[in-house]
Amino acid sequence: MRVGIIGAGSIGLLFAAYISRVSEVTIYTRTVEQAAEINKFGILLKISEKEDTLSLIKALPIKEWKGDEELTIIAVKQYQLPVIVEMVNKLALVPKNILFLQNGMGHLKLLETIPFTNIFVGSVEHGALKENPSTVAHNGEAATKVAVFRGDPAILLEFIHSAPPEFPLVFKENYFSMLISKLVVNAVINPLTATLQVENGELIKNPFYFQVLKNLFSEICSILHLDNPNAHLQQIIGICKNTSTNRSSMLKDLEASRMTEVDAILGFILDEAKNKGITAPLVENLYYLIKGKEIIKGEYA
Amino acid sequence: MRVGIIGAGSIGLLFAAYISRVSEVTIYTRTVEQAAEINKFGILLKISEKEDTLSLIKALPIKEWKGDEELTIIAVKQYQLPVIVEMVNKLALVPKNILFLQNGMGHLKLLETIPFTNIFVGSVEHGALKENPSTVAHNGEAATKVAVFRGDPAILLEFIHSAPPEFPLVFKENYFSMLISKLVVNAVINPLTATLQVENGELIKNPFYFQVLKNLFSEICSILHLDNPNAHLQQIIGICKNTSTNRSSMLKDLEASRMTEVDAILGFILDEAKNKGITAPLVENLYYLIKGKEIIKGEYA
Repeated sequence: MRVGIIGAGSIGLLFAAYISRVSEVTIYTRTVEQAAEINKFGILLKISEKEDTLSLIKALPIKEWKGDEELTIIAVKQYQLPVIVEMVNKLALVPKNILFLQNGMGHLKLLETIPFTNIFVGSVEHGALKENPSTVAHNGEAATKVAVFRGDPAILLEFIHSAPPEFPLVFKENYFSMLISKLVVNAVINPLTATLQVENGELIKNPFYFQVLKNLFSEICSILHLDNPNAHLQQIIGICKNTSTNRSSMLKDLEASRMTEVDAILGFILDEAKNKGITAPLVENLYYLIKGKEIIKGEYA
Repeated sequence: MRVGIIGAGSIGLLFAAYISRVSEVTIYTRTVEQAAEINKFGILLKISEKEDTLSLIKALPIKEWKGDEELTIIAVKQYQLPVIVEMVNKLALVPKNILFLQNGMGHLKLLETIPFTNIFVGSVEHGALKENPSTVAHNGEAATKVAVFRGDPAILLEFIHSAPPEFPLVFKENYFSMLISKLVVNAVINPLTATLQVENGELIKNPFYFQVLKNLFSEICSILHLDNPNAHLQQIIGICKNTSTNRSSMLKDLEASRMTEVDAILGFILDEAKNKGITAPLVENLYYLIKGKEIIKGEYA
């Protein structure tokens, strides 16, 4: 299968490195320089306590994307999605099968408006860090959950079955519950760790922070009308335990003066609250705190 | 007038340095060592762009306090107050005139239970920093507001009139509105700057932080049933402007791994909310965030 990967951040590089073991991959980069670097050096995949592996992968700047691969994986941040969709609308050939890997649920509205036939969504649970334009560290080995948003799952199922066993893809029947489960985890762990500048585990070790976590979770529960809230809470607690010394992606984004995904995560929940006429004081405040930190980080970057 | 000052932190040292210019002051310290140091070196008062001045002041460890001064000023933190009140109850002589300078309003309940005849309360607006056991920097020159909590104001009025002009004391008719005004300022500026680790001015310069400030203020307003909320908000904005490069006392406390006054400030407002059956999600969350930071700072201190 020929696979196109749009975006060469940590997730794009990680997918390219693994998927190229079983499929013909082209990775599309934002800059000409990064494409040149990947073509020259390949993508170096680093996994702790395993040997580094190098994959030679074809890279092109995004403007050369023609959409002619059998499956296109969109691995850009949610806030970069509008630009990508605009590009798609100008393609001569509309890609038939497309898999979106964005966090949050802010992108679902956008997906409803685009002309692709078969649209899939995924939830990436791996930990990955882009160390330089052609090097990615795979820190937390996990799985990628995928589901059909619209259309025929045939290519998605083929993709799942062909995936290398060390990089599993898991099919989920219900895209909504798959994404919402990740959303709730991200909405609690990311903004709190980013505001407090602490590692994930601190949120459950510190009894006062844990109280804040529970209050926030409870507000999010009532906004999203979650079934079985306790299962979600236990999932959050489990992730804080299992990744206790990790810094969340939102914290890392702020530390590196990058934009965060707060709009896709808390912004989506705020919109839900507004639509349902529910007040969301904690979510709203956290949203503003993170937006405020984005500005400050930008100022001093 | 003979004046006793209980507590030799930044405010105790500041008052001792100025009041000793017009009255006979004894300062009572928590440790024997600090008393010895003050007796040996005097109190050094540093004011930016003015010459440092040295005042020779009698210092005694608190256990030697007999309560025989005409006015006793209590300049300890609110959370140290129960220990002081216990000591007072063991004194042979009950001090007749006592002035409490604590932040917040958490101490008012305690004042109702003690046997002093004339009780005064004050609200200190000076900026002061204790640089070492016998040195205090006076960073923000301002005034001290004082009012009668119970009893005869005679000694307080005498104290006001004798105060040195460079260290003014202002009489207020209504102790409640005087303290609540300071409480609201402290409840907004202190926890937000301490959580975000920013200088005071950032709260109004950053539009997202300013939104958080307004949301928090609005929640506090409805809990405290403030008259003329806009005047309070303008006061907060004015203070953020005038002290824009200052770090708030709560931020400094956390940075120095000290306990904060969060119980006296947000704790009091939370109790008010509980008594009135009002939910206080933002105040509650900020309260826990600060308590959580106190633990972490303590751990790593």
